[in-house]
Amino acid sequence: MREYYTSIRVRYAETDRMGYVYYGNYATYFEVARVEMLRAAGITYRSLEDSGILLPVMSYAVRFFRPAHYDDELVIKTVIPDLPGARLEFEYETHRGAVLLNSANTVLVFTDKESGKPVRCPDHVLAALSD
Amino acid sequence: MREYYTSIRVRYAETDRMGYVYYGNYATYFEVARVEMLRAAGITYRSLEDSGILLPVMSYAVRFFRPAHYDDELVIKTVIPDLPGARLEFEYETHRGAVLLNSANTVLVFTDKESGKPVRCPDHVLAALSD
Amino acid sequence: MREYYTSIRVRYAETDRMGYVYYGNYATYFEVARVEMLRAAGITYRSLEDSGILLPVMSYAVRFFRPAHYDDELVIKTVIPDLPGARLEFEYETHRGAVLLNSANTVLVFTDKESGKPVRCPDHVLAALSD
Amino acid sequence: MREYYTSIRVRYAETDRMGYVYYGNYATYFEVARVEMLRAAGITYRSLEDSGILLPVMSYAVRFFRPAHYDDELVIKTVIPDLPGARLEFEYETHRGAVLLNSANTVLVFTDKESGKPVRCPDHVLAALSD
Repeated sequence: MREYYTSIRVRYAETDRMGYVYYGNYATYFEVARVEMLRAAGITYRSLEDSGILLPVMSYAVRFFRPAHYDDELVIKTVIPDLPGARLEFEYETHRGAVLLNSANTVLVFTDKESGKPVRCPDHVLAALSD
Repeated sequence: MREYYTSIRVRYAETDRMGYVYYGNYATYFEVARVEMLRAAGITYRSLEDSGILLPVMSYAVRFFRPAHYDDELVIKTVIPDLPGARLEFEYETHRGAVLLNSANTVLVFTDKESGKPVRCPDHVLAALSD
Repeated sequence: MREYYTSIRVRYAETDRMGYVYYGNYATYFEVARVEMLRAAGITYRSLEDSGILLPVMSYAVRFFRPAHYDDELVIKTVIPDLPGARLEFEYETHRGAVLLNSANTVLVFTDKESGKPVRCPDHVLAALSD
Repeated sequence: MREYYTSIRVRYAETDRMGYVYYGNYATYFEVARVEMLRAAGITYRSLEDSGILLPVMSYAVRFFRPAHYDDELVIKTVIPDLPGARLEFEYETHRGAVLLNSANTVLVFTDKESGKPVRCPDHVLAALSD
């Protein structure tokens, strides 16, 4: 369970005056993509948070090759390149049909809600991602 | 302190494919307008929340007469028509120069954070709004 | 084709500090709901716009009964109460399971892109909504 | 005119369930920062666009050190490290008082609206940024 595909339809609210998806909105698409990937692996991000583990984003980088437009149906390919330690990395590619629109990556950190300190990836998450 | 004017510059992120401010984004402008009005009256909404009083929105209505565009400098006139009991109402008008773009109102409810129940407007808020 | 149900999963980006869906974000959910309803009736909103007819929102009102939370799966019931003339009205109810969270309505106006003037509902739209 | 400071107050809409500014919303803050920097240099981004030159974002990267919270008053330091050719780069640092919250950079491309092709930075922009 290290690769996953998520479909997202572009909403009107997400477009801008250029007629493109506003560059800042891809961060939300990638959030949806990684959450759905985790869900497919049996991990509900909400439960993780409710159990006291936050996963804030530590870094995010994206390169844009072509814009997406209103009502486009996008497919985001998400890859977890390495099994997580304290950090969990995701790589993303946004496609519209055969066309690659952008590629991105995020690094998240398992963080104890109380102390705010990094912690190791919980065992059940590691197990789910190792399958 | 029952009438207040707030300036807001339209951000690119807030426009849509029509070139207008997306209709959903005015809710954020009105949030900024009421928070700044309260601040001018000596009430910090963050402190209120930190003291255990939430102010969720109970109803919101808006009528649009003309669109706003990217980079427009809008002025939002905010009025508190009545001294609050458990409810705090705000009325808004968005202007661009002499042109009225829309008018709106929201009703918020003073709510105890723990119980989730409505509570009466705290005395210091009432005092600040009575000046 | 006068009633329709759309599922929407709450995204992290859409929550706020209270842990609720930010009140302004429901406007986007209702946009998705009405666009999907039109699509199910055979009308692509993007095509409508590309053919020179805009559908800006003229009024929007919402009453909130209970909050939605992160990752909730919401169902929005959308109803078109009357066949459109120059105006197209939608009524919405947001449910989480059996619980009604809020109800809303929007009025949109068929508008000629060039002149900015209201126009009558195009025949093919009227036919699709009359089925 | 190669360094600029912009103040931004965090809006409620921009926070998330963790109580932090949602990681995707910094893209909007950086947009505001670069637009205000250009304005201070005598360049209105809206005019640029109206004259047929778009400036889409080609890449964006951000590293997060500490979160921002609701109502924080942030100062974004923006730097243009090099005079633009077809590309215009901005570097950003977000501070809350003396604390550095994150650092980022974006690369934008001067693009002809009609052809969609990259073009050289217009002379008046280059002149304004050379002062």
